[in-house]
Amino acid sequence: MDYEKIFSDAIKAIRDEGRYRVFADITRHRGDFPRATRHDAGDNARSITVWCSNDYLGMGQHPKVLEAMHTALDETGAGAGGTRNIAGTNHYHVLLENELADLHGKEAALLFTSGYISNEATLSTVAKLLPGCVIFSDELNHASMIQGIRNSGAERHIFRHNDLDHLEELLMAADPLAPKLIAFESVYSMDGDIAPIEKICDLADKYGAMTYLDEVHAVGLYGPRGGGVSDRDGLADRLTIIEGTLGKAFGVMGGYIASSKMLVDVVRSYASGFIFTTALSPVLAAGAYASVKHLKGSSAEREKHQERAAQLKKRFKEANLPVMDSESHIVPVFIGDPVLCKEVSDILLNEFGIYVQPINYPTVPKGTERLRFTPGPLHDDNVMDDLVRSLCDIWERLNLVRKAA
Amino acid sequence: MDYEKIFSDAIKAIRDEGRYRVFADITRHRGDFPRATRHDAGDNARSITVWCSNDYLGMGQHPKVLEAMHTALDETGAGAGGTRNIAGTNHYHVLLENELADLHGKEAALLFTSGYISNEATLSTVAKLLPGCVIFSDELNHASMIQGIRNSGAERHIFRHNDLDHLEELLMAADPLAPKLIAFESVYSMDGDIAPIEKICDLADKYGAMTYLDEVHAVGLYGPRGGGVSDRDGLADRLTIIEGTLGKAFGVMGGYIASSKMLVDVVRSYASGFIFTTALSPVLAAGAYASVKHLKGSSAEREKHQERAAQLKKRFKEANLPVMDSESHIVPVFIGDPVLCKEVSDILLNEFGIYVQPINYPTVPKGTERLRFTPGPLHDDNVMDDLVRSLCDIWERLNLVRKAA
Ligand SMILES: Cc1ncc(COP(=O)(O)O)c(C=O)c1O
Ligand SMILES: Cc1ncc(COP(=O)(O)O)c(C=O)c1O
Repeated sequence: MDYEKIFSDAIKAIRDEGRYRVFADITRHRGDFPRATRHDAGDNARSITVWCSNDYLGMGQHPKVLEAMHTALDETGAGAGGTRNIAGTNHYHVLLENELADLHGKEAALLFTSGYISNEATLSTVAKLLPGCVIFSDELNHASMIQGIRNSGAERHIFRHNDLDHLEELLMAADPLAPKLIAFESVYSMDGDIAPIEKICDLADKYGAMTYLDEVHAVGLYGPRGGGVSDRDGLADRLTIIEGTLGKAFGVMGGYIASSKMLVDVVRSYASGFIFTTALSPVLAAGAYASVKHLKGSSAEREKHQERAAQLKKRFKEANLPVMDSESHIVPVFIGDPVLCKEVSDILLNEFGIYVQPINYPTVPKGTERLRFTPGPLHDDNVMDDLVRSLCDIWERLNLVRKAA
Repeated sequence: MDYEKIFSDAIKAIRDEGRYRVFADITRHRGDFPRATRHDAGDNARSITVWCSNDYLGMGQHPKVLEAMHTALDETGAGAGGTRNIAGTNHYHVLLENELADLHGKEAALLFTSGYISNEATLSTVAKLLPGCVIFSDELNHASMIQGIRNSGAERHIFRHNDLDHLEELLMAADPLAPKLIAFESVYSMDGDIAPIEKICDLADKYGAMTYLDEVHAVGLYGPRGGGVSDRDGLADRLTIIEGTLGKAFGVMGGYIASSKMLVDVVRSYASGFIFTTALSPVLAAGAYASVKHLKGSSAEREKHQERAAQLKKRFKEANLPVMDSESHIVPVFIGDPVLCKEVSDILLNEFGIYVQPINYPTVPKGTERLRFTPGPLHDDNVMDDLVRSLCDIWERLNLVRKAA
């Protein structure tokens, strides 16, 4: 059997659609974000500006975070050295879990090695433990949630994105006695729109469903203490489970859930993706702990972040670039074709030293390809001017559509 | 619906079986492994000796590893700031992937956030891409492999542990034209036995199957360059895919596969668990890179490791403690009951300051509960004497079975 042939056909299929991915090999400069060095342009390493990082606030270079990590490294070493159950639980894990529980006003929290695995492990475990569980899942939910829901084996119903009527229709049609779980996100990361959390919780109450909210693109960024959109809107107590990441606004790596003591205990005790893996490095836990604590007490980064996002949207609109509607800090610009999308991105990188990754299928639906900008506190007016000028130049050159999408 | 009641029943079931897990909250002392501080004994933090870490060689405190991590932290910051495709590929990833490919004599390697997700993502993706694929899986394979195999949806056959006849029987019975994959481990981590890799490869050749070898408990530890048992036995080129972790002998965190360029490209391009998650922190990648490089060039740690393991086995035997047969560095002592197992472990920790986690179901089959010791280069004769003395005391006190199991 010619296995390599089958694999090369699979790669060819992706190439033919114009969505073969080439990773940009970059090194960010601590102390000088959003600047970075690009290594893959032959021998000439080149300085670039990063416009698509999810280290939204630049916490990855925050002195408090770095200091905490240096200290933990010297104190306890590089890795956890074991699973959480077998020699791998470190005091930094305990501190961080307490901090995250407090951040979301929940009884307990549980760390995972990534947000991806926190979604997969929690959703699959919870639904498996509830015989006959029916899951209601927003159609734009992240791949990791979809994976968890699939792996649970539970009956699932997909509701149209943020569509309360459709969700209620599905809830109504389900067995009233069946356990139910509604899974959704707060900020949808590719469009930047926000779920009607309160109304979804109302429906959950009405139909006796649990709620699972992915706040991966909101923790650190929204709410007086950075607890996400549920914190901003005072809704945290209405959600059964809040899930987040330590790898985006908090600038480090890892994932978590916050919920009741009992639910956390059951996931801790049953979830394969939690149990059978080396625990988060204490160095990462220490850094995330410092980051969460800092953003709990400081809103300056969040305010600047919102101001910068509003500023960029305004400039794109003034330049008649097809910026897509977004209620959040995410600023997508519509292209609608994978090949063009990559072409624009390549020109930006190679000619203008501006790095924004093309967003193609499967990250977004085909036909909605886009550039996705994530302005942050460290993107000043100068780099914004430079970006808008460069885009206008390319839009002209390639004769791209100009009005707002 | 009373969800909390269902969850509390699930917890009660575990408690009733005597296998409710309480995590030991410890902080290892960099520069003083295997010593650590235990934080959960009330206010009196207490110094203990760790006997169950999978940081087998103590690389988590190696000066080269720590220096590389300090440097990366200062150079590039705490996290990757994005997925591999979207702003998250760092030059340390590229260097480390090249190093790992070379370690296993393969064309390419691919990093994941953990060994767990590398198994899950690779097995599920590869089998999904081969229509009609049949998987042959050793019955003692790790939970993460089982998860990946399940998630692939492929037909699977479980062969009795390390049983070549049974494997061949199953291969023979399968459709000769179907794509096939044999998944197994080199060192089985709870028993310490080693798979007949060469003979399994012979069967794979005979029946046209691909081979997938988990070397998680062998990389860094076996072979002239630390490439695992396949390196030691000169078999790396006969395996289609070698999988490993950066979190055990390499002392850091993360996972990887090494294989052909094409296979790595296809997993890179299709695997949900690789694509949709924040990339490994550059700090971890830098540390792992230093660790892999060091162990490629130095066998001193490996030799000392083997010597210490042999020494501990010898002492346990001399003391008539029921040490289980093991061909590797892993030294399990049989107990056979979850409650007793936890009791012995508790006495060791509370009275003797010796930390070895009880290994109960689901990590091992019920009725085979054990203590699992992982002696390393840093466990000197003194701590061994202390350990053997303490065990004998407890064996006496609890009237436990004395002869070898
Ligand atoms: C909505 C959403 N959930 C979960 C994740 C996974 O989190 P992590 O990057 O920590 O694995 C991501 C992105 O990576 C995401 O966009
Ligand atoms: C055999 C085996 N494979 C894979 C893993 C997962 O590796 P990691 O700890 O890097 O997630 C483990 C243990 O954790 C293991 O024992």
